[in-house]
Amino acid sequence: MSHAIDLNSDVGESFGRWTLGDDSAVMESVSSINAACGFHAGDPSVMLATCKTAVERGVTIGAHPAYRDLAGFGRRFLDASPAELTADVIYQIGALQAMASVAGGRVAYVKPHGALYNTIVHHEAQAAAVVSAIAAVDQSLTLLTLPGSVAGRLAEEAGLRVAHEAFADRAYMPDGSLVSRREPGAVLTEEQIPEHVTRIANGEIKAIDGTIIPVTAHSICVHGDSPGAVAMAADVKRTLEAEGITIRSFA
Amino acid sequence: MSHAIDLNSDVGESFGRWTLGDDSAVMESVSSINAACGFHAGDPSVMLATCKTAVERGVTIGAHPAYRDLAGFGRRFLDASPAELTADVIYQIGALQAMASVAGGRVAYVKPHGALYNTIVHHEAQAAAVVSAIAAVDQSLTLLTLPGSVAGRLAEEAGLRVAHEAFADRAYMPDGSLVSRREPGAVLTEEQIPEHVTRIANGEIKAIDGTIIPVTAHSICVHGDSPGAVAMAADVKRTLEAEGITIRSFA
Amino acid sequence: MSHAIDLNSDVGESFGRWTLGDDSAVMESVSSINAACGFHAGDPSVMLATCKTAVERGVTIGAHPAYRDLAGFGRRFLDASPAELTADVIYQIGALQAMASVAGGRVAYVKPHGALYNTIVHHEAQAAAVVSAIAAVDQSLTLLTLPGSVAGRLAEEAGLRVAHEAFADRAYMPDGSLVSRREPGAVLTEEQIPEHVTRIANGEIKAIDGTIIPVTAHSICVHGDSPGAVAMAADVKRTLEAEGITIRSFA
Amino acid sequence: MSHAIDLNSDVGESFGRWTLGDDSAVMESVSSINAACGFHAGDPSVMLATCKTAVERGVTIGAHPAYRDLAGFGRRFLDASPAELTADVIYQIGALQAMASVAGGRVAYVKPHGALYNTIVHHEAQAAAVVSAIAAVDQSLTLLTLPGSVAGRLAEEAGLRVAHEAFADRAYMPDGSLVSRREPGAVLTEEQIPEHVTRIANGEIKAIDGTIIPVTAHSICVHGDSPGAVAMAADVKRTLEAEGITIRSFA
Repeated sequence: MSHAIDLNSDVGESFGRWTLGDDSAVMESVSSINAACGFHAGDPSVMLATCKTAVERGVTIGAHPAYRDLAGFGRRFLDASPAELTADVIYQIGALQAMASVAGGRVAYVKPHGALYNTIVHHEAQAAAVVSAIAAVDQSLTLLTLPGSVAGRLAEEAGLRVAHEAFADRAYMPDGSLVSRREPGAVLTEEQIPEHVTRIANGEIKAIDGTIIPVTAHSICVHGDSPGAVAMAADVKRTLEAEGITIRSFA
Repeated sequence: MSHAIDLNSDVGESFGRWTLGDDSAVMESVSSINAACGFHAGDPSVMLATCKTAVERGVTIGAHPAYRDLAGFGRRFLDASPAELTADVIYQIGALQAMASVAGGRVAYVKPHGALYNTIVHHEAQAAAVVSAIAAVDQSLTLLTLPGSVAGRLAEEAGLRVAHEAFADRAYMPDGSLVSRREPGAVLTEEQIPEHVTRIANGEIKAIDGTIIPVTAHSICVHGDSPGAVAMAADVKRTLEAEGITIRSFA
Repeated sequence: MSHAIDLNSDVGESFGRWTLGDDSAVMESVSSINAACGFHAGDPSVMLATCKTAVERGVTIGAHPAYRDLAGFGRRFLDASPAELTADVIYQIGALQAMASVAGGRVAYVKPHGALYNTIVHHEAQAAAVVSAIAAVDQSLTLLTLPGSVAGRLAEEAGLRVAHEAFADRAYMPDGSLVSRREPGAVLTEEQIPEHVTRIANGEIKAIDGTIIPVTAHSICVHGDSPGAVAMAADVKRTLEAEGITIRSFA
Repeated sequence: MSHAIDLNSDVGESFGRWTLGDDSAVMESVSSINAACGFHAGDPSVMLATCKTAVERGVTIGAHPAYRDLAGFGRRFLDASPAELTADVIYQIGALQAMASVAGGRVAYVKPHGALYNTIVHHEAQAAAVVSAIAAVDQSLTLLTLPGSVAGRLAEEAGLRVAHEAFADRAYMPDGSLVSRREPGAVLTEEQIPEHVTRIANGEIKAIDGTIIPVTAHSICVHGDSPGAVAMAADVKRTLEAEGITIRSFA
């Protein structure tokens, strides 16, 4: 029996003089990158360099649009109107499409960033705005989101493909939601991650109370913005490959 | 003998709460619009609305990229490196392409804005950076520039189409350059404009000293950011049409 | 019996190439200005010009800090952390203090702008953050807010002076809250305003259902960002002065 | 005979999610900090934290205003008008004054950043604009600049105090100018720096050709934005103190 799963990571989050993460190292482990599009991070030079590296490595490019909030790194909820948000997301995807095209590649999916990612899990109007932007730009784009999100449901209704992700280093509740970061055990240790990601690739998660729950994850999200995170991404890849699981984009 | 010439105007230069110009009125007179792309003006919502109006009116859409300088409206020279500038221009064109596409249209040409427009008339490195961006994004894009500009020469060398423009309300020197705004008579009066634009459409300009000089202009630039300017654009269109000249995009 | 009340208006909300309102005309009617500080509007040149005009006219200068949101004109809630918000407000007040000082004046009060104004009426953490910023910068600053706001309560607890305002062109509910803009009659007509503002200056409001309710307003807010609004501000001033009420800053 | 000299370093150049340098470590070695003011780096939270640390350490606070250019980190010449530049500099100094005041300190001097620093060495109009801003905000502020700069001359003419600086790790030409970074030997090695800074503190520099030239430096600039630079700052301090030279602010 052969398995394949995607590994995705946020990249291209440097800006001007400021460097964040080691994108080149991360791209040795993941099959998909969520490339910042300038609103929370990622100036145009960074975006172009990111796309070039991704094309060289054969890594799939996804857009990582965010609220317009450089100072807050897109991590703060912004009460944008649906019309504003749709236009903002079109803008960011379009800019990245041009970069990807110049680099010889293309944008295959969209994963909103930070507070926007979290908001469209439950916020109907903003979720609809994001879905509307994606559908308007390119019907072949996939939305990468949490299983059960409002945005995922709306995207499917709009005829878009939807991919679901699970997190390599986060503990889950028996109902499939994440353990809050304020709770002990919310972030998995280096020792716990190999079993966790192998289970995910096999369609299940052991929740924090030991319950085994089914999960359908097309992708596992790993972080890339610290030296430890880069090593973790590499470990996840090795672990999965050792189990005979292929790391491959869902797109 | 039949004539045709393009009329172009800067539009989409509102931003957020701030409105500039009457784009809808301007688009009744011109055949091409230079649409701001977010760096000097034009937030994504404005860009999308601009593209929708242009498509409805059958007006050709051009990208109007600028230095990253909202506070200065792109009117201040910025000593960006060629690599930065290339990426910045790709970004802006790409964002507008997505907007145009969502609106049912496409970006047909590029006319840099403000200080960037002026700089690439003579600044070899920045001109090359802009040309490189355009060529990388889409070889079918036309560059709209001044006759004799460095950017125009480099664009032709890169295999791009180049269109030249003259200004509806500016006086010219016998060598074909513009009379400096600091000199008397630099800006033509309402009474002078009809003869001036008719001559341009017929391939000549009467310079400020009375000399008749040949000019090859594919487009006449009219302004749209004041009530008077909107009326002037309408007058220019009426004048030319009365002379049997068709207003038609060069693209 | 002699009365005095303040009239306040938002000014200095131009930015770069974009002009909003006729600040000079507004300052002929009001006794206090809420000067934008660069985060939602008001570049430094505008701020300096605003302060100079205010000093010339003898108008009291207030700071009008906002969320960092130029594209949204500070009208969108932003989930900034208290620490971020405190620093953002200190920054904006400090910048305006320097402008006011250079112009020969001083900042006398603080009235938050837009979504921040509305949020700190009820949002305990953000209200505390704003109050903390004001108290840290200058204990002699007054906070201008709605009667009954959380921010007003916290400011008093912090030993700051608090001034309350009512709106010249808004209808009120019998409980003293504003009629929602989505309801008919929410915005008063030109004909209704004279009686309304005279009542406010005399300590009462006739609510939309005819109930007379007491109000303690140190200031009446008038708008200045449209030609009609400028005329309204002048009318309010004339009406009040005709009733023997002096227009005078609360500070 | 007792000597004292100032050591200054750029700090507070983080922004939002992005960290640059180890300001706390740098402040163990230097006597003066050039604190970013938000236009090239340094969001308000960073500015407040920087001022608090400086006050705790007894380090003198200087303002480090820049062109409005986050994406370019203030390193690109921007052709701002004198009026714009004066207002931009007042704004930045004012914002930092508020931060310093809240932290229990004060801004003692101004050292422009990056391209603005270099430009006002020779650009008369921009130099005058910066000097005019400083003089308008606070006549007791010192301008820290290169010996022989236009800005220094204009500041003296305006009655401001001027301090001169030399660079710890840069080679000099016999005429007192810096060896261009494009030339070999422009940046001094770790081995060369101790002799170089000791000479500076004693009023002389050995130029790249061996000539000994006199120099009057009130301060030595050390960098703080890399681990190596932090160590260098500490080395410079140790070297000078071992020579009996006190590290002390010029202000």
